[in-house]
Amino acid sequence: MNDHDRIAVAVDVVICMLQNEALTVLLIKRSDQDRWAIPGGIIGVGESLQSAAVRILEEETGMADVYVEQLYTFGEPDRDQRKRVVSVVYYALIPAQQIELKAGSGTDGAAWFNVDELPRLAFDHNEILDYALTRIRNKLEYTDVGFQLLPEEFTLTELQTAYEIVLGEHLDKRNFRRKILQANILHETGGMRTGEGRPAKLYRYRDGAFVEVKARRLFP
Amino acid sequence: MNDHDRIAVAVDVVICMLQNEALTVLLIKRSDQDRWAIPGGIIGVGESLQSAAVRILEEETGMADVYVEQLYTFGEPDRDQRKRVVSVVYYALIPAQQIELKAGSGTDGAAWFNVDELPRLAFDHNEILDYALTRIRNKLEYTDVGFQLLPEEFTLTELQTAYEIVLGEHLDKRNFRRKILQANILHETGGMRTGEGRPAKLYRYRDGAFVEVKARRLFP
Repeated sequence: MNDHDRIAVAVDVVICMLQNEALTVLLIKRSDQDRWAIPGGIIGVGESLQSAAVRILEEETGMADVYVEQLYTFGEPDRDQRKRVVSVVYYALIPAQQIELKAGSGTDGAAWFNVDELPRLAFDHNEILDYALTRIRNKLEYTDVGFQLLPEEFTLTELQTAYEIVLGEHLDKRNFRRKILQANILHETGGMRTGEGRPAKLYRYRDGAFVEVKARRLFP
Repeated sequence: MNDHDRIAVAVDVVICMLQNEALTVLLIKRSDQDRWAIPGGIIGVGESLQSAAVRILEEETGMADVYVEQLYTFGEPDRDQRKRVVSVVYYALIPAQQIELKAGSGTDGAAWFNVDELPRLAFDHNEILDYALTRIRNKLEYTDVGFQLLPEEFTLTELQTAYEIVLGEHLDKRNFRRKILQANILHETGGMRTGEGRPAKLYRYRDGAFVEVKARRLFP
C-alpha cells in the first residue's frame, strides 16, 4: 500500500440561503460525530468533483438547478483525527424558499444556522465557513453571487437588504441605488411589487452584466 | 479496498516568471510521458497541500521564499488514463532572475515556455494553464499579484510593461500612470533608475495597499 492510498478525497458543500433577515448555512449532525458539520462525503471513483457536489446538494435539499462553485481545497494532515482526508469544498447559493431537509445517509439530522451564531463544528469546518463567507462577501461586489440568493424578480429594497445581510453592515440607501443603477446590471421588468407601503418597481439581473463591468477595469 | 483508496492526491505548481518581454511558465519533461507537463507529484501522507507545493517549487527552482497560492482542484475521472488522480493546483510567481533549473526526480528535463506559445501538454495541463492565466489576469487589477513578478524596486515603465505582458495588451501610458498613482498603492523610494534614457523614479509596492483599495468597494 502506497502513501497516497491512505488519503481519501471528500467533497463538502457549504449551502447558503437568506431567511429571517439572516444569512444561514445548512449543517448536518453526523452519526459518527458529536458536533454539527458541513454536509459532504467521500467521492466515488468514477465521479467528478462537481458531480459529487451536486449529488450532496441534492441529497440534502432535493434541489438540482442551483449555483454551485468550487471554493478551496483543505488538506491539513490532522484535520480529521481518524484518517487523512483532503476535502474539496464547494459552495451553493439558494434563493429563499421552503425546503424540506432530507438529512442524507449517515446523518441524524439537518438544520439551518445563522452564520453569525455558529456552534463549534466538527473538524476544521468553522475555518472552512469563515473562508466561504469571506469569499462570498468579496465576490458580492464584482460578480452575480448576490443575485443567486434572490428570486428572479426583486425590488431595490430587497436587493439592498440582501447585500446588507451578507456584508453584515448598513448601506446608505441613496448611495446604493445610485451605484447599482449606474453599474447598469439590472433591468426593470415593468412589474411592481404591491403590498404594504408604496408599490415598488421590480428588477431582474441582466445576465452577463458583471462580465461587462469587469471589463471596465482599473487599467483599460 | 474501498473506492477512495483508488484515488491519488497530487499537487501541481504553475510557476510563472517574466523574461524577454514574455510571461513564461516552467514545464518539465516527465520520464513517463511523451509530452511536457506542469511540475507536480503525489503528496506525502503527512504533508500539507501547501507544503507539497513549496517542496515541488524548491525541487524545480531551488527557490523557497516565493508567492504561492492555491488555484483550483482538478478532478475529472479521466484526466489521467492510468489512475484516478485529483490534482490540487497552486501557482507561484517569481521576480525575473537567473534560475538554475534542477529537474526533480522522475523528470528528463525542465524549461521555460512562453505562455502564448505552449505545445500540447500532458493530461489536462493546457486547461489548467488557461485557468491559471485567467486567474492571474483577473487578480492583476485588485490584488498585489503583479508586484510578485517584479523586483522590490521598479520604475513606472517597468510596472506598466509587466502589466502589459501579463494582460497581453497595450496600455495607454498617461492613463496607466494616473490610475496607478491615484490608487495610492505605491511609494517612492527616493532612488532613481539611471542608464539609457532619462533617469526614472523608483517605486515600491506599499504593503497591504490593495486591502485598502478593496475596502473602497462598489457598495460602501
